[in-house]
Amino acid sequence: MLKVITSKENPRIKFAYSLKDKKNRLEYKMFLAESFKSLKMAIEHHKVVEVFTTSYLDIDEEIPQNLVSEDVIKKLSSTVNPEGIVFICKIEEVSLENPKKILYLDEINDPGNMGTLIRTALAFSYDLVVTSDKCVSPYNEKAVAASKGAIFALPIKKGELKDYKGSHKIIVSTLSNKAKYLEEVEVPEKFVLVIGNESHGVSKETRNLADLDVKIKIDNIDSLNAAIAGGILMYKFH
Amino acid sequence: MLKVITSKENPRIKFAYSLKDKKNRLEYKMFLAESFKSLKMAIEHHKVVEVFTTSYLDIDEEIPQNLVSEDVIKKLSSTVNPEGIVFICKIEEVSLENPKKILYLDEINDPGNMGTLIRTALAFSYDLVVTSDKCVSPYNEKAVAASKGAIFALPIKKGELKDYKGSHKIIVSTLSNKAKYLEEVEVPEKFVLVIGNESHGVSKETRNLADLDVKIKIDNIDSLNAAIAGGILMYKFH
Repeated sequence: MLKVITSKENPRIKFAYSLKDKKNRLEYKMFLAESFKSLKMAIEHHKVVEVFTTSYLDIDEEIPQNLVSEDVIKKLSSTVNPEGIVFICKIEEVSLENPKKILYLDEINDPGNMGTLIRTALAFSYDLVVTSDKCVSPYNEKAVAASKGAIFALPIKKGELKDYKGSHKIIVSTLSNKAKYLEEVEVPEKFVLVIGNESHGVSKETRNLADLDVKIKIDNIDSLNAAIAGGILMYKFH
Repeated sequence: MLKVITSKENPRIKFAYSLKDKKNRLEYKMFLAESFKSLKMAIEHHKVVEVFTTSYLDIDEEIPQNLVSEDVIKKLSSTVNPEGIVFICKIEEVSLENPKKILYLDEINDPGNMGTLIRTALAFSYDLVVTSDKCVSPYNEKAVAASKGAIFALPIKKGELKDYKGSHKIIVSTLSNKAKYLEEVEVPEKFVLVIGNESHGVSKETRNLADLDVKIKIDNIDSLNAAIAGGILMYKFH
């Protein structure tokens, strides 16, 4: 299904543009993504609603395709040099039967970190990413871009850490003295790995839910970047 | 030494502003940094040339301090909500006697990745960071910010990988079949760990210099973010 759109005032373009706003993403349960690599993953996971492209794409005919000018793409894109496509995707909250490896993001503020953590969780075969109320939206354009398509492949939902208490070992990374170094601990069969905020780490309430406090041995500097710490922890716990 | 500057046209402000340009950074061998945490590390490592601040700082009197308006800070800062200080630092190329653990950045393009890799190298007690000609400058404002002060504490220089061939084991991360998984290799005593480009990894010339090809076991997605891969590799090789 191919349409040609020339005006930036076209209702479909206006609707797509409106998804840059979090309020509209929540209302319509849709978000914007770009790049061919991401499109490939989004199609594989049946998440594409509609595509805006500067040249015809040989994809499933059932996906609506709008042929648009470069100006339209520039308007919709969040990057300086867009690849010539922007597409609308649906947000779906999946319910998983028995997720074993869960990444819990406590208060990730930086969209780049959010996307990178999702990408890394997919690479280490996590079953689910759960975000707390205090996180930046994973559907923020920068987060979507940094996820490199992982956002389409990995179930993501909002939730509370306490819901996993009992069913899963809750692993929290802290700098406290009672925390064990990564090398000293075994990987549990079912667990939730918690990554805290970029500046102040995990909250006290979160620490109180921990079954296992771990730390990465570092020197010379207070802390690692949250996504780097998350990467090392997922490499260990996977 | 405290001066009060009210005009954005003041020559010191203009000079500081000129350091946003790479050409001027190279010419004067100076760069801009901000945040109190970074200032603390910069002072510790004797790298501060001059400070611009909205309120008097209780620091070494020999460091020139300019009391300026918030507008001046906004002009000099690269962040949306600056902390009220910006300072000029010197770029010094140190010559190390016998660096054992070296991080070699082959073609890192993203300033955030550059800074994060430097921060991580400091945390894992690397002796030296060497950047190839093709890297983004580590003195780019975003790279400096992402390094969280590590740029002052860790020797950084430009150089070629081949200069370390023979004296150090050259470790390259690739996706090739002949690469060994991280878990299968020993940590050499003297080594250079190479991190490649965000999109296309390490170049063929670099691969040809490798003494040890390693890879991180991942699934479901082509690759990890370059800084995440670097973090996991430095966690292993330190």
